[in-house]
Amino acid sequence: MTTAIALLETLADVGVDRLRGGYSRHGFDRADAELREWFTAEATARGLDVSTDRNGNLWAWWGTPGPNAVVTGSHLDSVPGGGAFDGPLGVVAALSALDALRAEGFRPTRPLAVVVFAEEEGGRFGVPCLGSRLLAGTLDADRARNLKDADGTTLAEAVRAAGLDPRWLGPEPELVSRIGCFVELHVEQGRGLADLDAPVGVASSILAHGRWRLTFHGEGNHAGATPLADRRDPMVPAASLVLAARRVAGSVPGARATVGRLVPTPGGTNVIPSTVDVWLDARAPGDADTRHLVDDVVAAAREAAEAEGCTVTVREESYGDTVIFDGGLRDELTSLLGGAPALPTGAGHDAGVLAGRVPTAMLFVRNPTGVSHAPAEHAEPDDCEAGVAALARVLTHLAGAPC
Amino acid sequence: MTTAIALLETLADVGVDRLRGGYSRHGFDRADAELREWFTAEATARGLDVSTDRNGNLWAWWGTPGPNAVVTGSHLDSVPGGGAFDGPLGVVAALSALDALRAEGFRPTRPLAVVVFAEEEGGRFGVPCLGSRLLAGTLDADRARNLKDADGTTLAEAVRAAGLDPRWLGPEPELVSRIGCFVELHVEQGRGLADLDAPVGVASSILAHGRWRLTFHGEGNHAGATPLADRRDPMVPAASLVLAARRVAGSVPGARATVGRLVPTPGGTNVIPSTVDVWLDARAPGDADTRHLVDDVVAAAREAAEAEGCTVTVREESYGDTVIFDGGLRDELTSLLGGAPALPTGAGHDAGVLAGRVPTAMLFVRNPTGVSHAPAEHAEPDDCEAGVAALARVLTHLAGAPC
Repeated sequence: MTTAIALLETLADVGVDRLRGGYSRHGFDRADAELREWFTAEATARGLDVSTDRNGNLWAWWGTPGPNAVVTGSHLDSVPGGGAFDGPLGVVAALSALDALRAEGFRPTRPLAVVVFAEEEGGRFGVPCLGSRLLAGTLDADRARNLKDADGTTLAEAVRAAGLDPRWLGPEPELVSRIGCFVELHVEQGRGLADLDAPVGVASSILAHGRWRLTFHGEGNHAGATPLADRRDPMVPAASLVLAARRVAGSVPGARATVGRLVPTPGGTNVIPSTVDVWLDARAPGDADTRHLVDDVVAAAREAAEAEGCTVTVREESYGDTVIFDGGLRDELTSLLGGAPALPTGAGHDAGVLAGRVPTAMLFVRNPTGVSHAPAEHAEPDDCEAGVAALARVLTHLAGAPC
Repeated sequence: MTTAIALLETLADVGVDRLRGGYSRHGFDRADAELREWFTAEATARGLDVSTDRNGNLWAWWGTPGPNAVVTGSHLDSVPGGGAFDGPLGVVAALSALDALRAEGFRPTRPLAVVVFAEEEGGRFGVPCLGSRLLAGTLDADRARNLKDADGTTLAEAVRAAGLDPRWLGPEPELVSRIGCFVELHVEQGRGLADLDAPVGVASSILAHGRWRLTFHGEGNHAGATPLADRRDPMVPAASLVLAARRVAGSVPGARATVGRLVPTPGGTNVIPSTVDVWLDARAPGDADTRHLVDDVVAAAREAAEAEGCTVTVREESYGDTVIFDGGLRDELTSLLGGAPALPTGAGHDAGVLAGRVPTAMLFVRNPTGVSHAPAEHAEPDDCEAGVAALARVLTHLAGAPC
C-alpha cells in the first residue's frame, strides 16, 4: 500500500517554481490541470467515482453520493512559492486513509467522499477558499466571475479554458446538503503541536481574517528629473502603510497584519510610480478587533497619502469571521484520538467556510518549525502517517455509525 | 518630407503596454527587434549604410565611416510603461534633420552618422546606458554578459537570441575614435524650458546618479499563523528604507532618491516574504553628496533590518558621476541657436556616457508639464519641429566645418 508521503512525492515535479523556490500551483493554471488529472487517476484507480462540481471542486465518491456523507479532503493549489504539504497532505492523507479502511475490510454505512477544493489560497484570483465559498454561497458568483488574475484574465475566462461553464459558478445547496460532516487534515502552520510534543491535534478555532487591497494613486514621473517638492509618489504612503500595519497589529492582542504583496506600476527603477497596489492581510481573534485594526491601518494610509498629495482607494477582497469548530465533533475526535490536543490556528481553511454550513472538524499534523507558505514547510513522514492513521480512525468512526 | 512627429507616429503600435499603459520596449525584446527593423528600413530608405556594432548599437552612416564624424541620435527603448518621446524623439529628429539637410542640398565635409543606443533605460537588465557604456568601456563586459532580466535570462543569452555574439560585447575604441562630436536631442524631462517659455534648450550638466539594489533577507512564513513576535519580515525594513530615502534626500540640496521598483518574494498576499528586493535610484549635484546620501540610506536600512532580525545585502548596479557638458560646444550651440537657454538635468543619457570620451552636447525640446517616464509625457508638434530645425542647424554647422 502506498504511503501518504510516497503519494505526495509523486507530485514533486508539478508546478515547481524555479524563480521563487517551492511550488506555484494556482486555480485553473497548468499545474492545477496536472494535479486534477493526477487526483482523478488516483481516485479512479481506487474505484471511486470522480466528478467536478459547478465551481471546479473535485469529488471522489465511495459509494452512491447521497445525504449524510462523511467528506474529507483539502486542496492541491499553493501560495506562490509555497511548500509541498499545505493542501496536498490533506488530499493524499484522505486517499491513504481510504486505502487503510479498505485494507481492513471496512464497509461504510454512510457515503464517503474525498474532495479537492479549487483555489484555496487565492494565489491567482485574490479570494481565498474560492471553490468552497462559491459552493457554500458565501461569495457572490457575479463578483467571482469578474475576479482578475495578475495578467488580467478573469475567473470566467480561466474556468472556461479549464472546460467549465462560468455561468454554472455559484452555490450548490443540493451538493452541500449531502455533506453530513467534513473533516480536513492539514499540516499545522505554527509550532503548537511541536511545543506540545504531539504528532496530531484537532482544530478548535480560526482567527477572523480578511484581505484588503489598497491602491495608492500618485503621479508617474521621472526619478531623476522630478524635484522632491514636485512629487506625488505613491510608494511613500505605501511604505507608511506597511509600518502602520505592523504598529497597529502590535497593539491588538493576538492580531496579525502582513503585507506580502506590493506592486508599483509601472515598476521601473528610474520611474516614480503612478500607482502602488498593496494587499493587506489582517487577522485577529474577533470580528470587532479585526475591523478595528483594519480601520486604524486604513486611516494611517489615508493620512500618509494625503501628506504626499496622493489618494488611496480601499477594497475588501475577502473576509471571514472567527470560526469556532463544532464543539461536539471536536470533543468526539480528541477523545477518539486518545486525548489529542485541541488548538487554534491563524490560518484560513476550506473547513472554516464549510463550518458555517455543516459539522466540521480539522486534524493537524505536527510541523517541526512551524514554517508554512514557504519552501521550508515540513512534516516528518512518521507524523504524516500518524495523521493518516488518525484520519482513518475518524472516518471509521464517523462512516461506521449513523450521523 | 515626413515630419519628425509623423515618423514618431509610425511607432505608435510598437511595444504598447496594455497593463501599465504607455510603452514597454526593452533591450533585445520583441518590441526592440521591431524598432531595429524600423530604423534600418528608414535609414536605408535615406541611402544611409546601417550596421550593428559589437554591443548592439545601430549606426547609420552618411558618407564613409571615418574619423571626425558628427554623430547624432538617441535610443528607442523605454522604461516600463514609458512615454512616446523619451528616446525615439531624438532618433526621428536625427532622421528628419538629415532629410532637411539633404533637401537643402547640404554636402557634409565630415562623416555624419545617426546612432541608436541599446537599452538606455536599463529597463530589462538594470544598468542604464548599457550600449553606450559597453561601447565606451565604462561597463565591464563580463559583468554585462551575466546581467539578468526579471525572468533570469542573461544579457549574453538575450544578445545571442538577437543574432549577436555575446563574446563581442565590450569596448570599441576604434569606433569611439571615429566620433568627432556627439549631439543628442531629447525631450526635456522637467519644466525648465516651459518655465523659460523656450521651445529648445541646450544641456549644461547631469546630476551624479546611480542605482543600488538592496535585498532584505528574512524568513518566509504564513501571514496568519505566525505571531508578530516570531516574524522576521523583510517587508518591514524595506518600507523603512523607502521612507529613509525620502527623508535623507530631503536633507541634501538638489538631491533625489526614489524607490520605483520593489519586489517581495514570493509575493503572496497571505505570505510573509522571504526576501524583498528594493531598487534605490539616488542622484545629487556632486559625487560626494550622492555617496553620502546613499551611505545614510543604507545605514538606515541596515538598522531597520537588524531590528526585525533580517539582514540586507547591497549591490551597486550602476553609477555615473556628475557630467558637465563640453563648455565650448555648449556655448557654440547656444549662440548658434540665437541664445537658447542652457539648463541642467537630473536625467541620465547616453550623451552623459559619451561626454567622458568625446565633445558632447544635448538639445532639449520643451515638455509642457515636465512629466516623463510616464504615458502622459508630451511635447507639442511645433516644439518637436523647432527641435528638428535646431538640430539641422547644429549638424550643418558642425558637419560643414572642420572639427
